Amino acid sequence: MTERIVLADLDDGVRGAVADARERVARLHGELIRWGLVVWTAGNVSERVSVSRPDGSVERTDLFVIKPSGVAYEELTADNMVVCTLNGDKIEDGTPENLTPSSDTAAHAYVYRHMDRVGGVVHTHSTYATAWAARREPVPCVLTMMADEFGGEIPVGPFALIGDDSIGRGIVETLSGSRSPAVLMANHGPFTIGVDARAAVKAAAMCEEVARTVHIARQGGDPVPIEQDLIDRLNDRYQNVYGQH
Amino acid sequence: MTERIVLADLDDGVRGAVADARERVARLHGELIRWGLVVWTAGNVSERVSVSRPDGSVERTDLFVIKPSGVAYEELTADNMVVCTLNGDKIEDGTPENLTPSSDTAAHAYVYRHMDRVGGVVHTHSTYATAWAARREPVPCVLTMMADEFGGEIPVGPFALIGDDSIGRGIVETLSGSRSPAVLMANHGPFTIGVDARAAVKAAAMCEEVARTVHIARQGGDPVPIEQDLIDRLNDRYQNVYGQH
Amino acid sequence: MTERIVLADLDDGVRGAVADARERVARLHGELIRWGLVVWTAGNVSERVSVSRPDGSVERTDLFVIKPSGVAYEELTADNMVVCTLNGDKIEDGTPENLTPSSDTAAHAYVYRHMDRVGGVVHTHSTYATAWAARREPVPCVLTMMADEFGGEIPVGPFALIGDDSIGRGIVETLSGSRSPAVLMANHGPFTIGVDARAAVKAAAMCEEVARTVHIARQGGDPVPIEQDLIDRLNDRYQNVYGQH
Amino acid sequence: MTERIVLADLDDGVRGAVADARERVARLHGELIRWGLVVWTAGNVSERVSVSRPDGSVERTDLFVIKPSGVAYEELTADNMVVCTLNGDKIEDGTPENLTPSSDTAAHAYVYRHMDRVGGVVHTHSTYATAWAARREPVPCVLTMMADEFGGEIPVGPFALIGDDSIGRGIVETLSGSRSPAVLMANHGPFTIGVDARAAVKAAAMCEEVARTVHIARQGGDPVPIEQDLIDRLNDRYQNVYGQH
Repeated sequence: MTERIVLADLDDGVRGAVADARERVARLHGELIRWGLVVWTAGNVSERVSVSRPDGSVERTDLFVIKPSGVAYEELTADNMVVCTLNGDKIEDGTPENLTPSSDTAAHAYVYRHMDRVGGVVHTHSTYATAWAARREPVPCVLTMMADEFGGEIPVGPFALIGDDSIGRGIVETLSGSRSPAVLMANHGPFTIGVDARAAVKAAAMCEEVARTVHIARQGGDPVPIEQDLIDRLNDRYQNVYGQH
Repeated sequence: MTERIVLADLDDGVRGAVADARERVARLHGELIRWGLVVWTAGNVSERVSVSRPDGSVERTDLFVIKPSGVAYEELTADNMVVCTLNGDKIEDGTPENLTPSSDTAAHAYVYRHMDRVGGVVHTHSTYATAWAARREPVPCVLTMMADEFGGEIPVGPFALIGDDSIGRGIVETLSGSRSPAVLMANHGPFTIGVDARAAVKAAAMCEEVARTVHIARQGGDPVPIEQDLIDRLNDRYQNVYGQH
Repeated sequence: MTERIVLADLDDGVRGAVADARERVARLHGELIRWGLVVWTAGNVSERVSVSRPDGSVERTDLFVIKPSGVAYEELTADNMVVCTLNGDKIEDGTPENLTPSSDTAAHAYVYRHMDRVGGVVHTHSTYATAWAARREPVPCVLTMMADEFGGEIPVGPFALIGDDSIGRGIVETLSGSRSPAVLMANHGPFTIGVDARAAVKAAAMCEEVARTVHIARQGGDPVPIEQDLIDRLNDRYQNVYGQH
Repeated sequence: MTERIVLADLDDGVRGAVADARERVARLHGELIRWGLVVWTAGNVSERVSVSRPDGSVERTDLFVIKPSGVAYEELTADNMVVCTLNGDKIEDGTPENLTPSSDTAAHAYVYRHMDRVGGVVHTHSTYATAWAARREPVPCVLTMMADEFGGEIPVGPFALIGDDSIGRGIVETLSGSRSPAVLMANHGPFTIGVDARAAVKAAAMCEEVARTVHIARQGGDPVPIEQDLIDRLNDRYQNVYGQH
């Protein structure tokens, strides 16, 4: 059903954008290690390939770049990143032949197919976020930085087995009506989204940090809730006025 | 209302002091990373510019240096620090043109305007201090190192929205009558002060460490309080006799 | 009873395989540090020596390579690794003369003698796994990554004193009927196994991570169990289909 | 009362031993950072100077080397270590003139004067050990590695103010009748001893690790105690037979 795509046949602009995305995605995996979000080879980052045309327009392609499966973090380079279609099939001439895309590729692809605003996806099993996921309990919004970044609680997605579109569908259904860029998939761990891979990695780091802080707050008693109206004002200011910190 | 200040018009002594402060403030952000106090681009350090005159006197200027907004920690250098007036306005020829000061600048400026003894301010969302802040609960003084560094409990400030002087006013009101150089702003996180930026960074590191240690102590049962008289004696010795550790 | 083995008398293939194993085992100790599994000189990795013959067959020898006792992690090199027989006796010409094998060597040797499928063994006192071991409580399977890696709970082995075969026997008895590559020896800590040393080190890292995550999950309430049937399907897919992540 | 000692007047053997101790003590402070035992400038290591004579005998001198007060860890070198008499007075020509010995020097000196077997002393405020100290609760022996290293529980010492011999006396009284090389001074933190500075640093690292592990074990329920007879056998084997790990 999928048309066979060959990178060598695409125009220079697309091939340059693929090369840039490979570079960025490889480097951003280092941020997962740096912020303590992953152990061993767990965790993966992807980015949808976008082309900046000479006339200033930006065009989203139907390709994305993702981590190869089972490669150690210190061996990740732009060269061993995997290029995939939005169906999650790897592009043969975009990937070293002995490598396959991350086992979570189908979930990333589903998100790109169904959420136009998403340009980057990240999955980790970061400790505190995964602990909330094991209880299938959302992280309540009791911190101003949660209001800023997540606009409310971090929601829980359904329990879904790997192997078909269940995980992707769970992510999309949970995040479509939410201001949160993070979802805790039940008994599994967080997936985060962003306008590009860097934004999704930031969301993964912030998700773990607020999951940890609220867990610790609650161990010592009851955190004081923030009123919904104040959450709305903080989120609006941060998302629409701010842009930098 | 604010008179426009141009660095190029100031005397050599002030311009040299600004350059020194930029260097110090940039470098001290590395200490926030080193001691695990910040995630991603959160957290900021500032220092009021002070000039050492040839006759040995020290003169506080109405300028301070602060982190730019939204720049990654590994990209912070003396060159991209932002110079501001005590009203929190950036000095045009003291800042790369595409950068704006940290979104917390108004709070730093308010503190400098209202607390003469303060030469450095630090804000973080460090995990354990922020967890106490989420419960709006002061950290009780049950450790000799808390008596030394904080002279009692670490107090909680009011809930305040960003955008006007509320945060700055909350910090100043809470710390004015306290021996503590740290305040936990409700649902937000710690702000610390010091005679210079280095002292405020030390207070931020110690604030997180005692918040963590007392949290863990309390998870296992009831810490034994230290009598007020002994706290006073420890604090007096540390602050007035000691100076080194 | 043990025949005296001299490395110099063995064929080139075996000697090359010993040299390769020394290199790998020395380097893998760095992973114990990297993932925070050991303090000071605690913890040890071993690997059974296997020879790849020119005709493509792989032959398991009756030798294994293990950490020397009491040497600091930063001083571990291929040269100071210890070569032992499956009885746990060191090979004289395979070890610097002032060094002895890890005090846990007898346990490693017992495992190799009784579990043919095992090519690598790791022992640590990693914090969270050891905390479960102190309560003699298995880690329940409430995470998809536990289903993947461990196929169910992480079991507890008996309390056993060092000095004879008790520890080795406890490991083998507990793991023989289990899909888990990790056992929590009572009041002691985890031992993990794998097809080679790298797989056993991965199991040690994952064991600590799931012990930590499930501990934290449970501090906040009751984790939701995963049905046995779903655990089986996840484990089958991961072990038999997957191979990379 | 104290006779004035001048390093330049001492024999070559003693001066060489002082130089060696400065080197070791400076370097061992790096281990406090490496194992996460200290924040900012807290924590200190000392070593009593011992001379190895050409005839093979070892002679303990009445000098020890300790960290200077208030110097950042990254600036500690052999050159800025402080040489003291057993009364805790610094040797003028053994210390850069602007530096003073650690504010905890009196406690170190007291231990050397009253415990002949001690050649190294370490003090930290390491998080978990200090948390037990805040509750004045000993760490119970529920781990084989505690039996090995500490021979039983880690005891609590009295509450003692800095400024006279109270802290030193509390350490000596608590540890004199104990197999433990660590004492948790009430509301303050751990002091550890050893035959030399390296052994005392190891005890500090292990003290924090077992304090953390037993804390976490207890958060999840009741650890299973180890019978005294088994603790004795483990400790005897580790201390008298073993020597390496």
